[in-house]
Amino acid sequence: MDKIPILKMGQYLLVTVQVDLYDRLALGLESDLVNMIRKHSSRGVLIDISAVNIVDSFMGRILGNIAQMSKILDAHTVVVGMQPAVAITLIELGLPMTGVHTALNVEKGMDLLREQLLAQEPLTPEEDDDYQ
Amino acid sequence: MDKIPILKMGQYLLVTVQVDLYDRLALGLESDLVNMIRKHSSRGVLIDISAVNIVDSFMGRILGNIAQMSKILDAHTVVVGMQPAVAITLIELGLPMTGVHTALNVEKGMDLLREQLLAQEPLTPEEDDDYQ
Repeated sequence: MDKIPILKMGQYLLVTVQVDLYDRLALGLESDLVNMIRKHSSRGVLIDISAVNIVDSFMGRILGNIAQMSKILDAHTVVVGMQPAVAITLIELGLPMTGVHTALNVEKGMDLLREQLLAQEPLTPEEDDDYQ
Repeated sequence: MDKIPILKMGQYLLVTVQVDLYDRLALGLESDLVNMIRKHSSRGVLIDISAVNIVDSFMGRILGNIAQMSKILDAHTVVVGMQPAVAITLIELGLPMTGVHTALNVEKGMDLLREQLLAQEPLTPEEDDDYQ
């Protein structure tokens, strides 16, 4: 498979990671994702990693990068479905995933994104600039 | 990857096929899916195949099987995101995907499922039995 599909669901984008994110695939995902956020004015990105059994520092860094890229494009990122073993490995690797929001499953992640958007909504467009 | 993740989204289940559906993986997906439909009383299954570039008769058969299994468990199946080349191949292989509903993308597939459920809703539980 040469690229990871990104599914548009209303205001959100959904990515399911099922394969090892090697170099070219990860870079492709990053660029596809920022292009999709721009194209569809998406407000949130959900990354499901429930199929990921093994995580390394590269993957941890990619997830962090995606969250930061999305943030400067005004979209929130939530990583969902992390397996307990993956959480253990991430902490043991010294990657506490700072700045990355997490949720137990896609539904809870969607709720989290909705809450974040509602909390942001009362702001005027000018005030929105303070959000970064 | 040893299994394809199935994401629960409200009444629906979402599956993104990103890898070749070889034997064991396909059987695993079928059994996981029927168990999830039962467990969550799901009313619809969305299968995204936008990442699938090459399709063979085995994969066509698996998709057909899933649709039939879901149907007897009272859930509709919609295959979404099919690439034009895949559609060409399926027809050339003599697999017109009878009984499988398709939609251009996840959002349109979700709309289709919603319409099908609404059309079904006015029925009483007894009349529902006629639906099969």
